[in-house]
Amino acid sequence: MTIPLADLNTMQEADFVAALGGVFEHASWVAREAAGARPFASVAALHAAMRGAVETASDTTRLALLAGHPELAGRAARDGTMAPDSVAEQAAAGLDRMSDAEVARFAALNAAYQDKFGLPFILCVRRHGRASLLSAFAARLESDAATERRTAEAEVFRIAAIRLNALVSGDGPLRTTGRISTHVLDTVSGRPAEGVAVSLHEVVSETETALVARAVTNADGRTDAPLVAGRPVPIAVYELRFALGDHHRRQGLALAEPPFLDVVPLRFGVSDPEGHYHVPLVATPWSYQTYRGS
Amino acid sequence: MTIPLADLNTMQEADFVAALGGVFEHASWVAREAAGARPFASVAALHAAMRGAVETASDTTRLALLAGHPELAGRAARDGTMAPDSVAEQAAAGLDRMSDAEVARFAALNAAYQDKFGLPFILCVRRHGRASLLSAFAARLESDAATERRTAEAEVFRIAAIRLNALVSGDGPLRTTGRISTHVLDTVSGRPAEGVAVSLHEVVSETETALVARAVTNADGRTDAPLVAGRPVPIAVYELRFALGDHHRRQGLALAEPPFLDVVPLRFGVSDPEGHYHVPLVATPWSYQTYRGS
Amino acid sequence: MTIPLADLNTMQEADFVAALGGVFEHASWVAREAAGARPFASVAALHAAMRGAVETASDTTRLALLAGHPELAGRAARDGTMAPDSVAEQAAAGLDRMSDAEVARFAALNAAYQDKFGLPFILCVRRHGRASLLSAFAARLESDAATERRTAEAEVFRIAAIRLNALVSGDGPLRTTGRISTHVLDTVSGRPAEGVAVSLHEVVSETETALVARAVTNADGRTDAPLVAGRPVPIAVYELRFALGDHHRRQGLALAEPPFLDVVPLRFGVSDPEGHYHVPLVATPWSYQTYRGS
Amino acid sequence: MTIPLADLNTMQEADFVAALGGVFEHASWVAREAAGARPFASVAALHAAMRGAVETASDTTRLALLAGHPELAGRAARDGTMAPDSVAEQAAAGLDRMSDAEVARFAALNAAYQDKFGLPFILCVRRHGRASLLSAFAARLESDAATERRTAEAEVFRIAAIRLNALVSGDGPLRTTGRISTHVLDTVSGRPAEGVAVSLHEVVSETETALVARAVTNADGRTDAPLVAGRPVPIAVYELRFALGDHHRRQGLALAEPPFLDVVPLRFGVSDPEGHYHVPLVATPWSYQTYRGS
Repeated sequence: MTIPLADLNTMQEADFVAALGGVFEHASWVAREAAGARPFASVAALHAAMRGAVETASDTTRLALLAGHPELAGRAARDGTMAPDSVAEQAAAGLDRMSDAEVARFAALNAAYQDKFGLPFILCVRRHGRASLLSAFAARLESDAATERRTAEAEVFRIAAIRLNALVSGDGPLRTTGRISTHVLDTVSGRPAEGVAVSLHEVVSETETALVARAVTNADGRTDAPLVAGRPVPIAVYELRFALGDHHRRQGLALAEPPFLDVVPLRFGVSDPEGHYHVPLVATPWSYQTYRGS
Repeated sequence: MTIPLADLNTMQEADFVAALGGVFEHASWVAREAAGARPFASVAALHAAMRGAVETASDTTRLALLAGHPELAGRAARDGTMAPDSVAEQAAAGLDRMSDAEVARFAALNAAYQDKFGLPFILCVRRHGRASLLSAFAARLESDAATERRTAEAEVFRIAAIRLNALVSGDGPLRTTGRISTHVLDTVSGRPAEGVAVSLHEVVSETETALVARAVTNADGRTDAPLVAGRPVPIAVYELRFALGDHHRRQGLALAEPPFLDVVPLRFGVSDPEGHYHVPLVATPWSYQTYRGS
Repeated sequence: MTIPLADLNTMQEADFVAALGGVFEHASWVAREAAGARPFASVAALHAAMRGAVETASDTTRLALLAGHPELAGRAARDGTMAPDSVAEQAAAGLDRMSDAEVARFAALNAAYQDKFGLPFILCVRRHGRASLLSAFAARLESDAATERRTAEAEVFRIAAIRLNALVSGDGPLRTTGRISTHVLDTVSGRPAEGVAVSLHEVVSETETALVARAVTNADGRTDAPLVAGRPVPIAVYELRFALGDHHRRQGLALAEPPFLDVVPLRFGVSDPEGHYHVPLVATPWSYQTYRGS
Repeated sequence: MTIPLADLNTMQEADFVAALGGVFEHASWVAREAAGARPFASVAALHAAMRGAVETASDTTRLALLAGHPELAGRAARDGTMAPDSVAEQAAAGLDRMSDAEVARFAALNAAYQDKFGLPFILCVRRHGRASLLSAFAARLESDAATERRTAEAEVFRIAAIRLNALVSGDGPLRTTGRISTHVLDTVSGRPAEGVAVSLHEVVSETETALVARAVTNADGRTDAPLVAGRPVPIAVYELRFALGDHHRRQGLALAEPPFLDVVPLRFGVSDPEGHYHVPLVATPWSYQTYRGS
């Protein structure tokens, strides 16, 4: 599905632009500029060349690049005039299935932002959970125009990096993915806890959580794959839940009803979407501990 | 407010009966029987004498004692014909402010129980949270008549013990109270964590929790008083929540947003209402542990 | 055995001086001076008055006070001309039963110190373990005369505080004692670990430890008394050793030979002789943790 | 250095016997028997064939196989008549550099064993530390002849397995190696602790330890290679020592002198020489924990 970097380095310019023209929204000129700098030794070098093309463009062109982005959950999304990558990105963040109240909230924020800065609000939505997205939006509304121009462009480069990684295979990919993983150790038996049901939830608000992933631990007490991987981990508060009581019952331990520990929640925040969050559980029927591991 | 055991030992029988006639619901004859066995060396001995009076009564009398109890959240409660102690006990369990669905649920259970056993369902409600109360009710409906008679009487003796402890002061009180306490240690500084906001919640269902107590830790990292004390700890699942992120910010630590650990929940079950549940938190910004302490 | 502060406040001056004349070594004039400031509201106020008497004395007098102290493990000790309190204090630190090499080491240090500062080396030996005592001695030899005068006097006041607390009873005693305590929790059973043999050792060198105390945990998992209390905890590295394997065998657990955990050592340093070092062990057959508790 | 299994499967029988004749001590007939069963799909299958050759031999032959083994630290070792593999194995266990007292102890045990069973004492020494070797020797002296025959043969098969793995490369090697590894996590910073000096010691007696390995943790808080790997982990008590105080000082933390935690010892027993003992340290300046990990 992906195009080898080696192919991109040797194909006709028109094909190169056709392949990468969508990396920057409605701005295939960025790809055209970068084409002249081929060959690239790595995907990161290709990204740097595209970024350089933007940073050396005229102010008018750079403004137009920003202006060409769709609003978050805005009119373009509802009208079906949004670029396909943006459609997918906003859908992944759940922006295509919001309540009426949320739609109204976004509409008000978008309007306020457009009023103040004369530009659409641009954010790399794949790096944010719902609560983080709203708080980032509110915070950036408080910013000044110059800072906000820089911030918006930085987000554009982040969006481009994720799109490039999805399109191109080759050495030196950009670091655009993080991970959430876990490990369950049973210190009554001194062995990994196998067969423990684990679920990961995003804590959306004080009363609402949303399921992100489910898994069962294997013989090494880990899940076969990380609970989140291959993408940025959205900035958010998460809760891991472990069916520890069920595990101890399977071990033949007699537990009281309710047991002292049954479903154990571990609540933690992710602030670095490209980080690795290893959150183990070391437990007995009467104790547990966790820490950010590695 | 309480009557010294020594006074009970020497007062007129009529006064003794007036004082303790309500310990067994609508059955002042139990107090009268026990009066003859005075003096009592301890409150526990007094309770044992009252229990003995019941256990040596005729079968008819014992059945009448059970039949005299009000249903849980039943007609007597609604009609205002329930004994004052029962009113207070059912209110403490929240049975006076249920949703219509809950009222209907209890009505159906009460009817089924009365149908099957010909008696009201009797439970020492102070020892149960909402979920436990319903599951105990459902479980006992599955029992047989002989077992259920014994269980109901055992509950009557538990109710009597709590009432006696509330009425009488003296040596050898009955063990009718439990405790939930906590302790917060900051292992970055090696000191108790002072000023940490702690709240205790009963986990009523997957989506509902009810606040039980709030406190702030003192210089020793403990709350000035246990979060629950002086009464049975209702059988339930609880969640302690600690404002750990705020504590670390007050210590001058720079935390990410959101911090790895902010509000830390410790979820645990209480199955022994007369037990001491000491649930400490030993924490840094990147790790924590808990265990059932002492 | 101790004299009530109230009695000291009202007795004849001569008796007061007789009682407290030895608090400052060979310097009963300090007590005589302080007598005039009676009555004292607390033992701490009495100490402050004696300290004030020293601090307002002439330089010559203050120097004589320092000069009147015996060397550590020095000639006065061997000749039997040392004041009784000093004899006991040096014995408690083990300075009366040193190897020939140690005696020689102290002799050399004492000579070097006397050479450099013209005074005996003064240290509140009850606050130091063997290794700390030698390292403090070496460090102070590097100091300058003015600093060393202040340091020596501060040690004299510490010695006096301990002696006063031993002599006088009353409100507001000086804080001259620390504590080492422990607590063993078994998180397989969720209960305090009873009957665990615990020993406390001072780590004298890489290859030598000296037994300080032995105890067995009670039903609450604690020792009936702290392992060290009622005196300063000598500055030193300590090791607590817990017979954890024996405990688990008594619980009926089948352990391998050798077990993963058998005798568990917890090694920790004490730098604050008046501090409380609570060092618990939270353990299973396959895990343990400790922390400075409170 | 090793011979590919494929080559062994196809070479002349004489070469096969030359290659594997030493796998069973002074018993090249075992290899000759096994040669007829070629080809082998795995090293394990080859071992099973050799074992089968022994188990189907006559009682006399089997006894002679046992009788052909050298004593542990016995006359053959001193006379230089021991097979080369045995020389290396006994040297690895330190049996070539014992004190006179230990030599005498072994001589007495060897004599007693020979007296009782008419055979040399056979043990796979690579699986035992010094203390374990002596306790196993003493325990087996208490056994009866039939059990001891079986035990001795099982040890012969273990010795053969280790020798085969050292000689032959190919699929399905026998499981003859274990591991000791560690991992240091700093929960003040939430990161692996890099640059921590770690040493592993065998606890030979209450007062004697012997260095096994030294390493320094890398950026992931692990040592680049396990502390023990590629061989059985001798049955023994071990102590890991971590220079934790130095680590915290490098992090810029101000520690008291002595620090609460400086060199942290983790003492643990190994009873399964082919097991993986992962023993991590999760620590702050005021707390630590360990557990058997995976």
